[in-house]
Amino acid sequence: METHTSAVICYPPTAGPNWKVEKVTLSRQVQEHELKIRMVATGICHTDIFVSSIPQGVFGVQYPKVVGHEGAGIVEEVGPGVMVARVGDPVLLSYNYCGRCDLCRHGQEPYCLEFVPLNLIGRDDVLKTADGQTVFAQFFGQSSFAMRNIVSEASVVNVLEFVQPGDDALKLLAPLGCGLMTGAGAVLNAARAQPHDIILVTGIGAVGLAAIMTAKIIGCKEIIAVDRVPSRLEIAKDLGATKVLDTGALDTAATATLAQELMKLIDNQRISFAIETTGAVPVIEGAIGALGKRGRLLQIGVPAPGANITLPISEMVTFNKVLECHFLGDSTANVLLPRLLTWWREGRFPLEKIVKQFPPENAVQALQEMKSGSTIKPILVW
Amino acid sequence: METHTSAVICYPPTAGPNWKVEKVTLSRQVQEHELKIRMVATGICHTDIFVSSIPQGVFGVQYPKVVGHEGAGIVEEVGPGVMVARVGDPVLLSYNYCGRCDLCRHGQEPYCLEFVPLNLIGRDDVLKTADGQTVFAQFFGQSSFAMRNIVSEASVVNVLEFVQPGDDALKLLAPLGCGLMTGAGAVLNAARAQPHDIILVTGIGAVGLAAIMTAKIIGCKEIIAVDRVPSRLEIAKDLGATKVLDTGALDTAATATLAQELMKLIDNQRISFAIETTGAVPVIEGAIGALGKRGRLLQIGVPAPGANITLPISEMVTFNKVLECHFLGDSTANVLLPRLLTWWREGRFPLEKIVKQFPPENAVQALQEMKSGSTIKPILVW
Repeated sequence: METHTSAVICYPPTAGPNWKVEKVTLSRQVQEHELKIRMVATGICHTDIFVSSIPQGVFGVQYPKVVGHEGAGIVEEVGPGVMVARVGDPVLLSYNYCGRCDLCRHGQEPYCLEFVPLNLIGRDDVLKTADGQTVFAQFFGQSSFAMRNIVSEASVVNVLEFVQPGDDALKLLAPLGCGLMTGAGAVLNAARAQPHDIILVTGIGAVGLAAIMTAKIIGCKEIIAVDRVPSRLEIAKDLGATKVLDTGALDTAATATLAQELMKLIDNQRISFAIETTGAVPVIEGAIGALGKRGRLLQIGVPAPGANITLPISEMVTFNKVLECHFLGDSTANVLLPRLLTWWREGRFPLEKIVKQFPPENAVQALQEMKSGSTIKPILVW
Repeated sequence: METHTSAVICYPPTAGPNWKVEKVTLSRQVQEHELKIRMVATGICHTDIFVSSIPQGVFGVQYPKVVGHEGAGIVEEVGPGVMVARVGDPVLLSYNYCGRCDLCRHGQEPYCLEFVPLNLIGRDDVLKTADGQTVFAQFFGQSSFAMRNIVSEASVVNVLEFVQPGDDALKLLAPLGCGLMTGAGAVLNAARAQPHDIILVTGIGAVGLAAIMTAKIIGCKEIIAVDRVPSRLEIAKDLGATKVLDTGALDTAATATLAQELMKLIDNQRISFAIETTGAVPVIEGAIGALGKRGRLLQIGVPAPGANITLPISEMVTFNKVLECHFLGDSTANVLLPRLLTWWREGRFPLEKIVKQFPPENAVQALQEMKSGSTIKPILVW
C-alpha cells in the first residue's frame, strides 16, 4: 500500500532555491537498516539552501529533490536489522555515513569517504511526485522536508530517554541534529576548548550561537562574538559572549583591520581558537591574523565555490597557527546529542531563544527570513 | 675559578653565517636549575644556520653568540634544585621552556610563550670571549657549540639508561635532541599516523628522514619521499620510503603539477598526511593540493620571512583539509628521546646512516656541506 504525504519539493533553482509544498508518495517499503519516520518538525539549515541552489546536474545534484536534514519525529516502521529504535520511539535525525570506509572505521564518520553520495545526492527510489516523477530523497539519509519518509538507520538518534513520544519538545529540538551539533561539536570535539582558552566566534547564526553556549558551559575565559548585525550580537551576549565586535561599521575587506580590532578588544591576550562560520574570505584571513601563539582557526562556514585565501605562512609558522576545515563539529550524533539534550534539560543550552516555528506551507517565508537574518533558526512543524 | 673552553662563535653575518672557532670563558658558576656540561658532540641543524644569518639586532638577536642546540655530553656540575641528572651522567640536550606559562602548563612545551627569549635569544651572563666581550649563550638553553657550557635543566634529558658515560655513542646520538626528534615527533605525536595512512614527506634532510624511519616503524601503508636531489631519494628508499618523486625534473613553481604527479604516483589513493620540511611555497601549496579527504599538512620547514601562500579554501573545506604549523614535532624531549633511543638500540632507527662527524675546527666546512646537500646531518665532535 502506498503512503501519501506532504513535502517541500525543490525544483531546479531559478534565482535561488525553488521550493514548493506538494503531495508526494513513498515509492516502496522500508528495507534493511531503514526506518519509516513521521516527522514532527525539521530545522532549516544553510546547507538546505546551498544545495537547493546548485544547478541541475552540477556536482551530481538532480531535481526534483527533497532536502531537510534536521528532522525530529516518531518511528512508524522499522526495516530488517534495525537496532537503533522501535516503533513509537521519538528520534532526532542527523547525517548519514557508510560505517565501512577507512575514515568511518577510525571514528571519523563526518569525513566518510561516501559523504557526498550518502548525504548530498541521496537516493531516487524512495519518493515520487503525485504525477509519478522520481524524486531524489534520503538527503542526509532523511529528507526531513517530507512529512513521512524512509530514512537510513545511520542518521537516527533515539531520544526516548529525554522526550516522551507525545511531547511537544520534538518541535523545538529538531535543529540539534545538524546546526547546533556542529557549533557545539566544534568547541567540544574539534577545539577541545578549556577554561583557560579565549575563543572567537565569527558569524552569529545557529552554529555560532551553539558554539557560544558550549564555550560558556566549558567556562572559557573570554568568548568574543563577531557579526555585522547588532541584534545578533545582543543574542550572543545573552547566551554567553563576553565581548562583541560589530563589523558593520568596519571595513571588513581589510583583513588587517579586523585582526587589529579583535586584538585590541582583548588587550592582546592570546586567542586560542576561532570558530569561523561565515565563509567570507576577509573574515577568515582577519581571524587567522588575530590568533595568538598556537591558535587554531576552525573553518565551519562554507566559502563560495572557487574562493582562495592568502596566508602569511612565515608568520603562521612563527606563531604555530593552524587552519582546520571541519564538518559537523567532528561529532558522532549518537554521542553528542545526548550530551546536548542533558544540557538543554538543565537549562544550559536554551535553544528556544534562537528558533522560530513555521507551518510547512510557509517554508518559503521561513527561508526568506533566514536569508535576511531576521530569523536565526526556522523550524517547520508538520 | 674561571673555566676556559673552546667554542664556535657566531659574529654578525656577512653573506651568511660568520662562524669562528675561538677560546671562551664561562663567566660564572652554575645557578639554580642549571648544569655544567662537558660536550662530547653537537649536531648542526638548519636553525643554527638560520639564526646566525639574522642581522645584528633583528628579532632581538645579538652578537657575538654561540648557537648549537643538539648537544650530547657529560654532567660536570649541578646547581641547586637540579633533579634531572647527577655528576657523571650522560645527557642529551634539547629545547628550553619556562614550564609556567599557559601552554607549558597544558603539556604544550614546544609552544612555550617564552620560547623566543629562552631559545633564540638566550642569556648574556654565561660566556665571554677571550678578550672579555659578552657572548650570548644558552641558545635553546644550551649553546652546545661550546665545549663546556652552563645549560638550563629544562633542556636536559638523562640517557644513563641507554649510554655508558665513556661510550662513543654520544658522538652519534647528539642530533636526537632537535632534528631527529622533530621528524619522528611530527609523525608520532602531531600526525598520530596509523598503519592505514599514506604519508608524504617533502624535503629529505634529517627531519624528513626521521619522519620516514618513524612512518616505517608504525607501518604506514605508503611512504612517499619528495626531493630534488636523487642521492637523497636513494637514502629515503633505504630508510623506508615506498615511493619517491624527484622534483629536480619538474617545474616545481607549478603547484598543480606537483599535486598531480603525487596523486598519479599512488593511483589517486588518499594521502592522509604531508610532513613538509622544505618551507618552499610551491611545495607547500602542491602538497596541500595532493592531500586526500581529511588530509593534514604539517608545516615543519621554516619559510622565508614574509612568505605568503595562496590556498583554495573552498576546495579545502570540501575535502576537510588541515594546515598545521608545528615546532619540534610536538615533542616533550624527556618522553620522546627514550623511545627513539630504544628504537635505535633495536636497529630500527639507524641514524648512523645519515650523519657525518667533523672536528669543531672544521665547523665551517660542515656548514658548507650541509648547505650544499652533500652531508645530511653533520656532527661536531669535541
